[in-house]
Amino acid sequence: MSALAELMAYQRETEALAQVAGRLGWDQETVMPRGAAEQRSAEMAAMEGVLHARRTDPRIGDWLAAATPETEVEAANLREIARSYARNTKVPARLAAELARVTSLAQGRWAEARAAEDVPAFLPVLEEVVALRREEAEALADGRPLYDALLDDYEPGATEAEIAALFDRMRPRLVALRDRVLGADYAPPALAGTFPRDAQLALSRDLALAFQYDLDIGRIDLAVHPFSSGSGRDVRITTRVAEDDPFNCFYSTIHEVGHATYEQGVDPAHLLTPIGRGASMGVHESQSRIYENQLGRGRAFTGWLFQRMGAAFGGLGIDDADAFYGAVNRVRPGYIRTEADEIQYNLHVMLRFDLERDLIAGRLEASDLEEAWNTRFKADFGVAVDKPSNGLLQDVHWSVGLFGYFPTYSLGNVYAGCLFDALKRDLPDWEDGLTRGDASACTGWLRERLQRHGALRGPRETIEAACGAAPKEAPLLDYLDAKFTEIYRL
Amino acid sequence: MSALAELMAYQRETEALAQVAGRLGWDQETVMPRGAAEQRSAEMAAMEGVLHARRTDPRIGDWLAAATPETEVEAANLREIARSYARNTKVPARLAAELARVTSLAQGRWAEARAAEDVPAFLPVLEEVVALRREEAEALADGRPLYDALLDDYEPGATEAEIAALFDRMRPRLVALRDRVLGADYAPPALAGTFPRDAQLALSRDLALAFQYDLDIGRIDLAVHPFSSGSGRDVRITTRVAEDDPFNCFYSTIHEVGHATYEQGVDPAHLLTPIGRGASMGVHESQSRIYENQLGRGRAFTGWLFQRMGAAFGGLGIDDADAFYGAVNRVRPGYIRTEADEIQYNLHVMLRFDLERDLIAGRLEASDLEEAWNTRFKADFGVAVDKPSNGLLQDVHWSVGLFGYFPTYSLGNVYAGCLFDALKRDLPDWEDGLTRGDASACTGWLRERLQRHGALRGPRETIEAACGAAPKEAPLLDYLDAKFTEIYRL
Repeated sequence: MSALAELMAYQRETEALAQVAGRLGWDQETVMPRGAAEQRSAEMAAMEGVLHARRTDPRIGDWLAAATPETEVEAANLREIARSYARNTKVPARLAAELARVTSLAQGRWAEARAAEDVPAFLPVLEEVVALRREEAEALADGRPLYDALLDDYEPGATEAEIAALFDRMRPRLVALRDRVLGADYAPPALAGTFPRDAQLALSRDLALAFQYDLDIGRIDLAVHPFSSGSGRDVRITTRVAEDDPFNCFYSTIHEVGHATYEQGVDPAHLLTPIGRGASMGVHESQSRIYENQLGRGRAFTGWLFQRMGAAFGGLGIDDADAFYGAVNRVRPGYIRTEADEIQYNLHVMLRFDLERDLIAGRLEASDLEEAWNTRFKADFGVAVDKPSNGLLQDVHWSVGLFGYFPTYSLGNVYAGCLFDALKRDLPDWEDGLTRGDASACTGWLRERLQRHGALRGPRETIEAACGAAPKEAPLLDYLDAKFTEIYRL
Repeated sequence: MSALAELMAYQRETEALAQVAGRLGWDQETVMPRGAAEQRSAEMAAMEGVLHARRTDPRIGDWLAAATPETEVEAANLREIARSYARNTKVPARLAAELARVTSLAQGRWAEARAAEDVPAFLPVLEEVVALRREEAEALADGRPLYDALLDDYEPGATEAEIAALFDRMRPRLVALRDRVLGADYAPPALAGTFPRDAQLALSRDLALAFQYDLDIGRIDLAVHPFSSGSGRDVRITTRVAEDDPFNCFYSTIHEVGHATYEQGVDPAHLLTPIGRGASMGVHESQSRIYENQLGRGRAFTGWLFQRMGAAFGGLGIDDADAFYGAVNRVRPGYIRTEADEIQYNLHVMLRFDLERDLIAGRLEASDLEEAWNTRFKADFGVAVDKPSNGLLQDVHWSVGLFGYFPTYSLGNVYAGCLFDALKRDLPDWEDGLTRGDASACTGWLRERLQRHGALRGPRETIEAACGAAPKEAPLLDYLDAKFTEIYRL
């Protein structure tokens, strides 16, 4: 066997084991018996140990040195393997183990602190997490800013400077639009009625099918926090049900279907290879967001949803499909990122981006973080944070060491804006199917232009290849301006 | 760290990975999307590769040579590790891989052949499986009969000669009893009524709880073939529902609860160690069988079940609890082992034992197996096999290479007979709780005497320690004589 063939055979086993480890996470959040948690953490640690040993095996270095790719696909796989090998061998094993231990502990502390509204109980362990991630970033940075080294895990090639400049360009237009909308004379109606759990889940399943989620290689379960899990031929999603808020269930489902349809849509030839998955967190979020927002919260699809919800639940307290379109897209002040509308969502991300890069740069101490959060929130949103669970403690990310992850949410929105423009250009009749609850034409376009390629290209190149132009923020901002000007009759 | 401590830390990780691999099997039979099968087989193979490499790691040999146990528990763990290491290193890697490949293929061929009633389509691959298992047995036998080497995987220390002698002693009494019962003037009534699926599942759950199955560290799902999966703090069972046959669901559940309660009952101090699981297949089956038969099909518990089923389903077509007791224990001619009553079940096992030891010894060729099966079945059961799915193709075992497994079912019955005698001696009021659907006293006794020790002792020693005497067949045969003489008014 050639070095390339040996490396790919080895890698295929590693990818298979990574799928097993990922499914263990799915199991934990959906079906695991409550009393199994401690045993499970030993199982998870053993799997992580196996994967870490495989990913740092010196034979990978030898194979990489000897392998000569002959195709674009081979070159892309080698690029991904080299990136993973460099990342994993640069971080000392002791540090990797300590990070695993402390973040596992910190996640529990965060959940307790959040339930008790007790920031001081969380800060000591957060301080440890920040210190360890800074140490890790130093091992990885090679002279770059530390934050850039962390970004690489989620959005390879992105830089703090470029994201900061992007956000600086986006902020004024988003704030101006938000302020116009909140000052508008018109306000869309709110949903009213009763929304039984089983009927929500049945409609939620239909929504998943409408967006071409394939239940033959997927399944839908309930979990506290919705997520998508797995690559290739076994890609599962979860959703949640609040009986007073069916939009939560429906749009969580569509969002996760975006992630899952991407994974399901990757060319099966790439199965269990390094490029057989989404290109980055930002590109992944572009899929979840375009399904959820541009398509799922658009006028055409909400017209169909209005009929389906009326049939499922009887009265919705809303007169017609236009008013319903407004109800789906209501903009209101709010503390919580995950509940924010399309405009303000990005402002929540920018707040976190600025705070976390200060933490990683050492310009901000964990002990000063709550004050910094609250000051910034008041400045950005005009409201004082009333309790930590509505402020600093609302997101799990920092407790598990996810610094550099938040900006990928807004990158995803920007990418989705670009993709939506290109899709409308290529498919002038794009709304036709959506008015009948059929997104197959849109999914077909996304699959052909983007999803099937997996991680063949880097994130920016993936968007550029799909849209025919480099990603930029204008399409998203223009789309938001037009959409909310119409809905709020501005 | 001492050699012993290093070995145990290593082994704990291996045990954790084995739990992960086992849960992958659970997932496959319960929740896996249909289209995920091919990817799953790559995942399973990768996990098996990891486990095989760990179990044959030469460091185990070094640690074993250097380790000095100071307690009974340490000595037992070393015994189990040494047994596993010897077994796995004696079989060449090429043969192990070939066995995995061929049995995986053969299981599919068996399922197709069974559906098509086509024995010749199955025979070539069965021949391969037999040849490979013989080759494996030769690598393991060390001068013993080949069949004994295979028995070691399921019932360490058992021998073909000893089982053959046991079965020779049991057969005449079982045949005599079966013939008396089938010739009796009285026949118990059959169940009649409608038994909706959801009501069966609800009552099935209550039965599991009655026998002390702990849902905090377990769960119940549906599968085509009921099974129990996992050790320690995550032990799951499955059941099945046939709307015309609620006993199938209820007694499958109780049977699997016996297996699962055993695993859940092992002392948590043994968690993720080699002795932190059942002592053998035979001892495992003793638990599933005593729950299912001696307790679950006894007069006290069926009295309670009669009431519960009446409440759940309305009319059962049966007048009183005595007649119901008969209905639960009906003896009829039948082709299928898994549907057989307590008497004839063992005759089904003996047929398979004799045929499979002839196969392994080379006295019988796969090509002659169907004729041998049908001739023997006619001789033992007085009925001609009408189709292969009622004969040679009814069990999956041989297709996946399980030669030496069948006798453990009857060993389990023999062990259950011994345990039941000892339980009644120690707990004179053993029926009191059962009449109220509460098996906690019986489970408590089994847990204290047997379950909590896991594999601390070998199979025979486990039974001897629990009962105070070496296992023998008389208690089972006396119990069957008394029970069926009463029910059939002989």
